Amino acid sequence: MSTDRIYNFSAGPAVLPLSVLEQAASEMTNYRGSGMSVMEMSHRGKEYIGIFEETKADLKSIMKIPDTHEILFMQGGATMQFSTVPMNLIGMTGKADYAVTGNFSSLAMKEAKKYGEVSIACSTEDKNHTYIPSQDEIKVSADASYFHYCSNNTIYGTEWKYVPETGAVPIACDMSSNILSEPVDVSKYGIIYAGVQKNMAPAGSAVVIIDKSLAGNELPMTPKLMSYGVMIESDSMHNTPACYTIYMLGLVLKWLKKQGGVEGMASQKSEKAKLIYDVLDDSNMFIGHAEKAARSDMNVTFRTKSEELDDKFVKEAAKAGFHTLKGHRAVGGIRASIYNAMPLEGVQKLAAFMRGFESKNT
Amino acid sequence: MSTDRIYNFSAGPAVLPLSVLEQAASEMTNYRGSGMSVMEMSHRGKEYIGIFEETKADLKSIMKIPDTHEILFMQGGATMQFSTVPMNLIGMTGKADYAVTGNFSSLAMKEAKKYGEVSIACSTEDKNHTYIPSQDEIKVSADASYFHYCSNNTIYGTEWKYVPETGAVPIACDMSSNILSEPVDVSKYGIIYAGVQKNMAPAGSAVVIIDKSLAGNELPMTPKLMSYGVMIESDSMHNTPACYTIYMLGLVLKWLKKQGGVEGMASQKSEKAKLIYDVLDDSNMFIGHAEKAARSDMNVTFRTKSEELDDKFVKEAAKAGFHTLKGHRAVGGIRASIYNAMPLEGVQKLAAFMRGFESKNT
Repeated sequence: MSTDRIYNFSAGPAVLPLSVLEQAASEMTNYRGSGMSVMEMSHRGKEYIGIFEETKADLKSIMKIPDTHEILFMQGGATMQFSTVPMNLIGMTGKADYAVTGNFSSLAMKEAKKYGEVSIACSTEDKNHTYIPSQDEIKVSADASYFHYCSNNTIYGTEWKYVPETGAVPIACDMSSNILSEPVDVSKYGIIYAGVQKNMAPAGSAVVIIDKSLAGNELPMTPKLMSYGVMIESDSMHNTPACYTIYMLGLVLKWLKKQGGVEGMASQKSEKAKLIYDVLDDSNMFIGHAEKAARSDMNVTFRTKSEELDDKFVKEAAKAGFHTLKGHRAVGGIRASIYNAMPLEGVQKLAAFMRGFESKNT
Repeated sequence: MSTDRIYNFSAGPAVLPLSVLEQAASEMTNYRGSGMSVMEMSHRGKEYIGIFEETKADLKSIMKIPDTHEILFMQGGATMQFSTVPMNLIGMTGKADYAVTGNFSSLAMKEAKKYGEVSIACSTEDKNHTYIPSQDEIKVSADASYFHYCSNNTIYGTEWKYVPETGAVPIACDMSSNILSEPVDVSKYGIIYAGVQKNMAPAGSAVVIIDKSLAGNELPMTPKLMSYGVMIESDSMHNTPACYTIYMLGLVLKWLKKQGGVEGMASQKSEKAKLIYDVLDDSNMFIGHAEKAARSDMNVTFRTKSEELDDKFVKEAAKAGFHTLKGHRAVGGIRASIYNAMPLEGVQKLAAFMRGFESKNT
């Protein structure tokens, strides 16, 4: 790691691989002899089409996306998908089911109410979203157009360890904060979507992976740019896509392949997360927010015994080179987001810093 | 100009100032001592908020935006605004008027029909969009929620030279391809919007400048991220914005200020456009598409007497370093887009190349 770089534990936008940033910088004024920046290329030109196609092919191969599903690059991040999913799908039966296990799944559920009848299939609000429901706690309506859940709750630091069983009801999953962190059986999902600003690319877009058979059901007022059908037909180019973001995703995917793909990321993330969870489990000072069985490998949420000590921790950590560790106001305390691009070394050093902080302050 | 750069006449995404790209490259892995790329920064962190506020302030000062109007950074480009404008405004009376002077204004008009009753206030389709209507050719309905037009037609190479008089009806203007190219009296507009990929920044976002008194009229099914009211209240941060795009816009605005602001750009663009239009006017080979009075300073559209010769021109121009000159299929022929960042030198050389091509092929 370059000596002038900090360890950035931001929940998103988040750290990107240094080698990716270096490559982007080196290609900025002249992409591989084209005489242009990728930012300057016509999205219909052969140079850019090459980048676009390779990025799609790499994502398809890394995630083993079956031919039944299409990859879309859509603008607006996951929040735009909170509206796009119901606009496209809820018209099938007029109803949808939502699992509420955190802030973003709750926002998604509220937005869907504009477009149809929404049922809460399960909620973890009773315990401030410290856990993930078990299969038998989930009530799926037989006539729901889809069942929606968020596979990793960034603010609360919880993560689904299984794919819910929903019978014939298609699953829509917000995978923003753990996509590409482990292998996923895409065939189990009707739609996977993810804001790109955590494990994929700079903020402002979403990747959508959709079972093509679900397209064509949009409500009449659906904006053209939000129609999955239109986006599939136009190969994400109904208008000018976020070209540079897709290029950056392409660079991240090449880096990820060198790390052993999603299988490699899965073993790295377990190793990294265990380093911090072990500190929590050994500690008389740090208290984890999430129940052990629901712990996220992407976002570790914890606190000390007082807000004053939390603040002291965050400030001293920043001085020591560990940044953006303040917890979200909904949970308070401390949060370390350790996405794919966070180097193992950063987590090792943070774990050591935590142990040192505890011994100094006990 | 760096010797390994081409002259890129793409209609968008388009050329960016070389000094801006060089600065972006130099700050890519460590933005001004922060130890992070701008791509990696939390949008709520003090480093990024600084960039965001400065970009807004620079745009406000460069365009002399009055306090009645708010600047929004929205995701999805101008095409998303084709839906966003009617969703937010047409509910005021249920009706809207559209001027159809090219491809994008026609697409905007068609999209608006999903949300209310749309009247065509004027159309230039009768002459393949070679001209701009005069004031007395425009029929504005007294009960229209707004009047929409596109101030520069990229594909056809025409540009409005005046702001239509619409009485009490607010004006919504798609300024994607000539924003920041000349001074504009923002107070005359209810909404100005522009996809950023021509004169502003890398593709994937739109800048919206809205009279705040128009907010709060959205239809009930408007996605939260498309509500101007929500976006004004959250200062464009209802969700994570396209942070890096806004940073790039900030760099472009600093560059633009050094060029003398929009007044400087206006004199440069006239000089550049005249160089090519003079070739057309002197030529026995090149035929301009647009009527003289409607000629755009941003996109010069022309052809030769045959498609074969058009193709030869485009191919030989590319060999000589002048790229992306093929006209859009709706018009055919040749198109030179000469946005703010196209250096004068590039246009001078293209004009010389055109004269040389004509003498060699006559």
